[in-house]
Amino acid sequence: MPLVPASQASEIADRILTAAGVPPDNAALQRDLLLDAEMRGIASHGLLRLPRLVERIANGVCDPVTSGRHDWTAPGVLRVDGQQGLGPVVAQAAIDAIAARAASQGVALAAIANAQHIGMLGFYADRVAAAGKCLIAFSTSEALVHPWGGRRAMIGTNPIAIGLPTGEGIFMMDTATSIISMGEVHDHANRGVPLAPGLALDAEGNPTTDAALARDGAIAPFGGAKGYALGLAFELLLTALTGSAIGREVKGTLDSTEPCNKADLFIVIDQDLAPVAGFLDLLRREAPAAGFSEVRIPGERGRELRRRALEDGILIADVTWLRLQDLAASAETIKD
Amino acid sequence: MPLVPASQASEIADRILTAAGVPPDNAALQRDLLLDAEMRGIASHGLLRLPRLVERIANGVCDPVTSGRHDWTAPGVLRVDGQQGLGPVVAQAAIDAIAARAASQGVALAAIANAQHIGMLGFYADRVAAAGKCLIAFSTSEALVHPWGGRRAMIGTNPIAIGLPTGEGIFMMDTATSIISMGEVHDHANRGVPLAPGLALDAEGNPTTDAALARDGAIAPFGGAKGYALGLAFELLLTALTGSAIGREVKGTLDSTEPCNKADLFIVIDQDLAPVAGFLDLLRREAPAAGFSEVRIPGERGRELRRRALEDGILIADVTWLRLQDLAASAETIKD
Repeated sequence: MPLVPASQASEIADRILTAAGVPPDNAALQRDLLLDAEMRGIASHGLLRLPRLVERIANGVCDPVTSGRHDWTAPGVLRVDGQQGLGPVVAQAAIDAIAARAASQGVALAAIANAQHIGMLGFYADRVAAAGKCLIAFSTSEALVHPWGGRRAMIGTNPIAIGLPTGEGIFMMDTATSIISMGEVHDHANRGVPLAPGLALDAEGNPTTDAALARDGAIAPFGGAKGYALGLAFELLLTALTGSAIGREVKGTLDSTEPCNKADLFIVIDQDLAPVAGFLDLLRREAPAAGFSEVRIPGERGRELRRRALEDGILIADVTWLRLQDLAASAETIKD
Repeated sequence: MPLVPASQASEIADRILTAAGVPPDNAALQRDLLLDAEMRGIASHGLLRLPRLVERIANGVCDPVTSGRHDWTAPGVLRVDGQQGLGPVVAQAAIDAIAARAASQGVALAAIANAQHIGMLGFYADRVAAAGKCLIAFSTSEALVHPWGGRRAMIGTNPIAIGLPTGEGIFMMDTATSIISMGEVHDHANRGVPLAPGLALDAEGNPTTDAALARDGAIAPFGGAKGYALGLAFELLLTALTGSAIGREVKGTLDSTEPCNKADLFIVIDQDLAPVAGFLDLLRREAPAAGFSEVRIPGERGRELRRRALEDGILIADVTWLRLQDLAASAETIKD
């Protein structure tokens, strides 16, 4: 895997996006989102998403310009038709609007339909927290997760992220309601490495540790019945609020041809907050259990990885880096 | 265990609460909350809480009359000082206020400090959903859960509940972010039954299956690092919004002498909603995995148990039922 300077990764992403017809501001935001995930070690939400995005623009199922249509249905509620705009462009415009509204209302939410993949939710939670507000973020996805006690993928990986200022810095957590990501399943399959038991089912709905079989099957909800209940609740809430597709009808973030019809939800809370940084310090000082070297605070490992990547460069998977170079070369050809 | 008609359990709870100085409307709400949990099979949040509540009133750490002081800090944000009022009385007054506000604002939240234990969050989610709105509910608790990779109880069991109308009925899920409840640990200890591995640590922070040792130790977050991240995020968010106590400083729902200093948060969303009942039907029709008889919808088993309890009576633990009869007898003596 090549160690690529962040500036070089950034520059190549910009070139590819610009050549695909993405305006500079939109390109910068989309690039920041993908690079941020890549640098935090979440490659599944990183630069490997870029080639598909370019294909989607070429296929006419992604509009690189629009930031979505806004419709305030109540003083605290923004409904957004993403108009197949770029995920971070639609999401950030919506968050900017509800953050401004929350300054007077205290709380405001954005319910978004028809946006492209909005990427790692923690990206937005980090930014809102850094601006002194709280964000609760949700998103749905294609059906990849089996209901607890079921055999087939029926529910999205449906992540939640929460960000808030702590009084000294920020706290941010971001987790899918699936036990692993389908990206990790593909990664295991590509490397021929088996999955741990209990993570996935094959296409017939039987437990498997064969990652190649799991690709056509379903991954488990995290934490059994509880994670299933959470993931399902998020999907029902987001679908009810947006009128988006649900379950196996959700399409458009894992293919290059279908419009995106999943849902996203952001809730911004703008209030005077009591400091909680001291409690995080207490947690860091706790004695670790056997097999652990420390008690970790969610989000901090990713932040440390990002800091190091900015200094030392980003380890990018060979296949992803080669693909980006190919795309950048074609971009040059078109320009010439 | 005696099978007690619901009307008889209701009547005895009313008598005990009234004798303790609880006004009739407040007594009815407190009784409904405890009976609802009892009937749904959640005995840990049921009638066994009643004797402690009476002690707390007698000890002057619970005010049986107040419904809390309301302070709108923004059009969408209600801060509530629970003034040590009864949990469901403070919670329901707050929910009524924000539900009315959400009708015009679209979304409103209540951040509550200093209320007694508010009981099963699903009770409120059910009622709000039945009234055609969405509720997201959170609460913190005494530190009973160890951080992932830690040895000591530092974090509450911090439940979340989500309720919404589905177009045909309601959906409600309610789960703690701990893998089991401390009530279940006590129940295992009382019956001398070991816990499954991975559920708890002893007082030294070592894994144990001995429920008696686990009582003085810590229970695990559900789903490992992910459940820890969720539970911690909820506790930070609620503490930041309410200025309540955090971590091991939280007191008052498991003792009879300390004021309650945990936090509660309700978010009500009032919008036109797309129907999602059809998707729940699809889930119910899914083929079950090996070892399961059906794919279940969260909340439905509890609802069915409640329906049967209303018809056939409620199975109440001997020790709880005897204690209630004692309390009711003393109540009569006082009256005479």
